[in-house]
Amino acid sequence: MASRDEVMDANIDAARIFRGPTRIDRLPADNRGLAYGDGIFETMRGAGGELPWWERHWRRLQRGAERLQLPLPPESLARAEAEQLLGSADAVVKLLLTRGSGGRGYLPPPVAEPVWILSRHPLPAPEPSLVTVRWCRTRLSLQPALAGIKHCNRLEQVLARAEDEPDTAPGGAAGEGLMRSTDGDAVCATAANIFVLKRDCWTTPLIDRCGVEGTMRGWVLEQVPVEQRRLCVEDVESADALVLVNAVRGILQVGRLGDRVWAPHPAVSALRRRLSTAHPAFPLPPSGPGPMELS
Amino acid sequence: MASRDEVMDANIDAARIFRGPTRIDRLPADNRGLAYGDGIFETMRGAGGELPWWERHWRRLQRGAERLQLPLPPESLARAEAEQLLGSADAVVKLLLTRGSGGRGYLPPPVAEPVWILSRHPLPAPEPSLVTVRWCRTRLSLQPALAGIKHCNRLEQVLARAEDEPDTAPGGAAGEGLMRSTDGDAVCATAANIFVLKRDCWTTPLIDRCGVEGTMRGWVLEQVPVEQRRLCVEDVESADALVLVNAVRGILQVGRLGDRVWAPHPAVSALRRRLSTAHPAFPLPPSGPGPMELS
Repeated sequence: MASRDEVMDANIDAARIFRGPTRIDRLPADNRGLAYGDGIFETMRGAGGELPWWERHWRRLQRGAERLQLPLPPESLARAEAEQLLGSADAVVKLLLTRGSGGRGYLPPPVAEPVWILSRHPLPAPEPSLVTVRWCRTRLSLQPALAGIKHCNRLEQVLARAEDEPDTAPGGAAGEGLMRSTDGDAVCATAANIFVLKRDCWTTPLIDRCGVEGTMRGWVLEQVPVEQRRLCVEDVESADALVLVNAVRGILQVGRLGDRVWAPHPAVSALRRRLSTAHPAFPLPPSGPGPMELS
Repeated sequence: MASRDEVMDANIDAARIFRGPTRIDRLPADNRGLAYGDGIFETMRGAGGELPWWERHWRRLQRGAERLQLPLPPESLARAEAEQLLGSADAVVKLLLTRGSGGRGYLPPPVAEPVWILSRHPLPAPEPSLVTVRWCRTRLSLQPALAGIKHCNRLEQVLARAEDEPDTAPGGAAGEGLMRSTDGDAVCATAANIFVLKRDCWTTPLIDRCGVEGTMRGWVLEQVPVEQRRLCVEDVESADALVLVNAVRGILQVGRLGDRVWAPHPAVSALRRRLSTAHPAFPLPPSGPGPMELS
């Protein structure tokens, strides 16, 4: 799939780098994404050579760019290049948008030409029907100025994921952990939003102080009534069902969190069934239960 | 100065990129510094072809690397390459250390080979004898896990610097602003630590929840008795003298902060005189006052 001049590195299938509308062959060393994490990104699940949720991702990218006053490349070009990079594959396409080049120092240049990178990555492994998660020790700091957007300052998530001790979670480990804010409220997983079902009511944490406004989160909010509010650890642990959602892995139900164990819940199955009709990358698992209304 | 194969970009004089001990010609597209700000950096003031405070910078880099569990290149190689890149220049040398390559996702690879970049930059403009600063609107979030280290998650500083309105601060503007935490305490400037003098006693904010353990801060702590504690805005504004310190610009006294105006203070002059003997890049200004003891 990769053309001769695509950048190839060990962990990606292929990548293309651009400055504004122009393809370039390497990332400039004065890139502000590299220096300061001065950028935002989208991770899109491709299916059969298409990026079905391109519009959702692009809208979120626009919101992040507006917040950080980042310049954007033309959408039509970005989409065409992303689809060309995907080719006919079932793969993940990542779009990383940086503020481009800058001098030494935090001050953004008055006029910035965006440097953006498209990369293609293998699909994640097939998901188990229930996943095991833990509470991370690393907390999310409260920063309303950055909350919601998918920016590239992700050391908190890196630290949280590095806590993983796979030996202690045999079988069904999600490669995920739940994160609390420094205030103690439950916010999200390291790379997913969370939804909590209790007495047939869905709730999800507010992301006004930390956390990311996920595209799959946005999709779920359009499907069922969901209350957005501050959630505590007890709200999560006493749930009737707990799910992790993101745009690459879809909807994952948690089966175990510490001593707490959950069985598959019909409301989650119903949500996944609806997703299977909304995005071709998330077909129903073969042994799903019969039809069931969304709560 | 730059050898034929050095990376050249618009905003830097020269750069060299390494993977572990090996020089490479471009940054791999799967670099985790680029993806997540998963790295740390040092900015060193060179003088006459030397990096006089190399050891201070390397020790801080080591502390940051230990906190984030980042792999380090051999110090002898890094130093030799940094000095070679500096050449005989009076310039700034930046060392950016990243966790190197990784797959998609926050989980650090079990064994990482560091990718590190050395770049040479022009000296800052000559400093005025007194600088003007303002309070930034952007606050620093509280994150003890990252406080103190000079990591590459710097969007808060980028947002704070982007607030600058040069038209409102004619003459002597420091290109700097003072930052408070989300809790309201005064912490630092966007790219400098602060010291406050009151009734002949120096104090500086604790950096246990946010802020950076600056190398110039460390030097000052070795020179004079300084109390490290939580400072409020009133502590700063009621000071007898307020200084900004960092390793590139040295010691800058604030002459104006909003309505507050300060005259040059002999204790600051004494500190700068001492610095002039400790680092050749910071000679005394020609019109400095006569000898004076440190308070």
